[in-house]
Amino acid sequence: MEKVFASIITIGDELLIGQVIDTNSAWMAQELNKAGIMVRNRVAVGDVWEDIWQALDEESRKSPIILITGGLGPTADDITKPLLCEYFGGKLVMHEETLQHVTYLFEKVFNRPMIERNRKQAEVPDVCTVLKNARGTAPGMLFEKNGTLFISMPGVPHEMKWIMDYHVLPMLAQRFTTGVIRHRTLLTANIGESFLAELIKDLEEALPDYIKLAYLPNFGMVRLRLTAQGTDAATLEAALEHHFRLLVQRTKDYLVVDEDLPMELVVGRLLQARNQTITTAESCTGGYIAHLITSHSGASAYYKGSVVSYDNAIKESLLGVSHETLTTQGAVSEETVVQMASSARSLMQTDYAIAVSGIMGPDGGSTEKPVGMVWVGLAWAEGVRAKKFQFRFDRKRNIEVTATQALNFLRELIVENSSGAIQP
Amino acid sequence: MEKVFASIITIGDELLIGQVIDTNSAWMAQELNKAGIMVRNRVAVGDVWEDIWQALDEESRKSPIILITGGLGPTADDITKPLLCEYFGGKLVMHEETLQHVTYLFEKVFNRPMIERNRKQAEVPDVCTVLKNARGTAPGMLFEKNGTLFISMPGVPHEMKWIMDYHVLPMLAQRFTTGVIRHRTLLTANIGESFLAELIKDLEEALPDYIKLAYLPNFGMVRLRLTAQGTDAATLEAALEHHFRLLVQRTKDYLVVDEDLPMELVVGRLLQARNQTITTAESCTGGYIAHLITSHSGASAYYKGSVVSYDNAIKESLLGVSHETLTTQGAVSEETVVQMASSARSLMQTDYAIAVSGIMGPDGGSTEKPVGMVWVGLAWAEGVRAKKFQFRFDRKRNIEVTATQALNFLRELIVENSSGAIQP
Repeated sequence: MEKVFASIITIGDELLIGQVIDTNSAWMAQELNKAGIMVRNRVAVGDVWEDIWQALDEESRKSPIILITGGLGPTADDITKPLLCEYFGGKLVMHEETLQHVTYLFEKVFNRPMIERNRKQAEVPDVCTVLKNARGTAPGMLFEKNGTLFISMPGVPHEMKWIMDYHVLPMLAQRFTTGVIRHRTLLTANIGESFLAELIKDLEEALPDYIKLAYLPNFGMVRLRLTAQGTDAATLEAALEHHFRLLVQRTKDYLVVDEDLPMELVVGRLLQARNQTITTAESCTGGYIAHLITSHSGASAYYKGSVVSYDNAIKESLLGVSHETLTTQGAVSEETVVQMASSARSLMQTDYAIAVSGIMGPDGGSTEKPVGMVWVGLAWAEGVRAKKFQFRFDRKRNIEVTATQALNFLRELIVENSSGAIQP
Repeated sequence: MEKVFASIITIGDELLIGQVIDTNSAWMAQELNKAGIMVRNRVAVGDVWEDIWQALDEESRKSPIILITGGLGPTADDITKPLLCEYFGGKLVMHEETLQHVTYLFEKVFNRPMIERNRKQAEVPDVCTVLKNARGTAPGMLFEKNGTLFISMPGVPHEMKWIMDYHVLPMLAQRFTTGVIRHRTLLTANIGESFLAELIKDLEEALPDYIKLAYLPNFGMVRLRLTAQGTDAATLEAALEHHFRLLVQRTKDYLVVDEDLPMELVVGRLLQARNQTITTAESCTGGYIAHLITSHSGASAYYKGSVVSYDNAIKESLLGVSHETLTTQGAVSEETVVQMASSARSLMQTDYAIAVSGIMGPDGGSTEKPVGMVWVGLAWAEGVRAKKFQFRFDRKRNIEVTATQALNFLRELIVENSSGAIQP
């Protein structure tokens, strides 16, 4: 076994001026990990000849595998292909198979005439192996130099993913006898990072050196991740399982789930196992909770629909919140969210309803109801329940943390209704 | 004037195994740009001593400003502080002001007892300038070595942002006489990247060397961005404006907006200017369009609410889609989205309604209605309109592209209703 590292180089000015958030690297890292390859370094450089060149030099001294994305489009700012051609001492030649594929795409899929610029996308350096891109016009390219593999792919996520799945990952599996990498993750709630660290201090110290522990706090909750690296899968998994179970046992009073699952899927699984359904009545989150739930295939098994009642008039007309409540208590109040949840539940005929109303900022706060104040209401067959949260800071984060905490509030209720106690 | 570059180093294993998507770098790059500083390089490294050390060495050879985030938490995997201490030859000492602040946070904000681990967060290398972190326990730290500035900040986004805004950006503005950087962006629809490139070829070739053009395709639309760098703001802006106006004029048949705005804000502004309102009736997008609209402060001026009718039963009961339509045409059909849009519009009493129904995948497709097929319906006072789209590939992207294209479909209608032509 060798311990195999890879570097990722992403190319494009848009990454350096903050116009685009790089989601490709995260996906690539996950897939490489599954294949037993650790990412050593991730570098983003602009559409600048010398910077790309230097990144290739530097990363090839660190890793035997260099994955490169971006800069392969048909326009003048795309310089990756000519640069790679020069870097590896080749010349551009027409690749007939790619030309046929590009022609097919324009004639049959895009239904647009093909121009010279598109034809040029089928040109490749004569020193590379072409990796067909079934999903787009720019092919992937594989170069080798002094035992290092350089793989260039388009930056368009679904094109990059296809080339990775179809060409790169199988090829890497064949070329490298990688070690085994395994992760186990658990999610806790209602405990701070420092306290959690104290709680599991002895377990952390007792970890063997091939198992690493990481703390990942987010949305007021902390994820713990164990990462094990070794040679033999069975031995490694057994050791990892042993240490992971100790952590699960120790954190049981705070444990949400012993997998790397987002909160909406934790709730979804609980509902599905109980053959129950959910709806949401959203004011301040504006449909974000519904979006989280429906971003996963299969949500229709437990999710029926939602009402986004952003305007108070809609809270009255569609969700039957009384005019008196809205004028005396206000839209951000216990009574409002309880009424919203109850009405949504009858309207959608579900087992559970979550309702949220709050002030996400940056405007709209007051001394009594500052930015970040949120009421969450729950309704189910036997009752209603509400809880006030006070979050801080920016709108985007407030929407996200509200959604996660509201779902966790429901999770606690579902578990409680199932067993008489909050813990699963 | 000097041309000033910065490098960004982000630290954390979670960035290299793909568990977390790095959104900090994009924000930092945007803010640096506004201050006239270009990001030369962005590097992500794991919680590994040698790799962090090497990144510091390499980046300090490239840029006079190194911004570092992550690895400052209270747990054992956080090694940035001891590493920086050794790198700059200092020793850890208690920083009284930070200790008072951490104590205050635990006593007054978190309402949790403070433990030794938290106390330690107030220790800093004696060779740094402490940058107070009003939003959290780990302070920022400023180091200087051979004329290079190294600034270490926590990876928690709202903490990093506060330290940037309050300490780092003002300090950089004071220390460096930066050049001027200006961007202008326009968004086009209904034209491919290659065709756009042909359309503006002569304009692109005529650009002076201090103005760069970039093509940014996304969601079936292409953004064009001009970036100008120079010394004198007034001269630069005049030249940029000149070239930008030529682009705007040339692309007028495809122009959505001559600013860097997301589609939901383009639509929001059109509505607000006309004192009109909107609602959405969403099936396959599951609330995502509502979320996009409400993710911006001030949306209440034109947005009232939505119905997410994921289940067909809700399409019938709440949106009055006829049972016959659902059984004969199906949920993904012109008739269904037209009925959804009309009902939502009456229910919410808005000027416009968008309805969407489609198959987002990966499951649920058929030969007649494959994954990626979407019907979008619009309703307004004078009529209804529907359009079929066929997208490809994965669920997440299908939801996003559906939302953007549906909003663009509405935008065309609003503009048409205002002027008798599609263009603004």
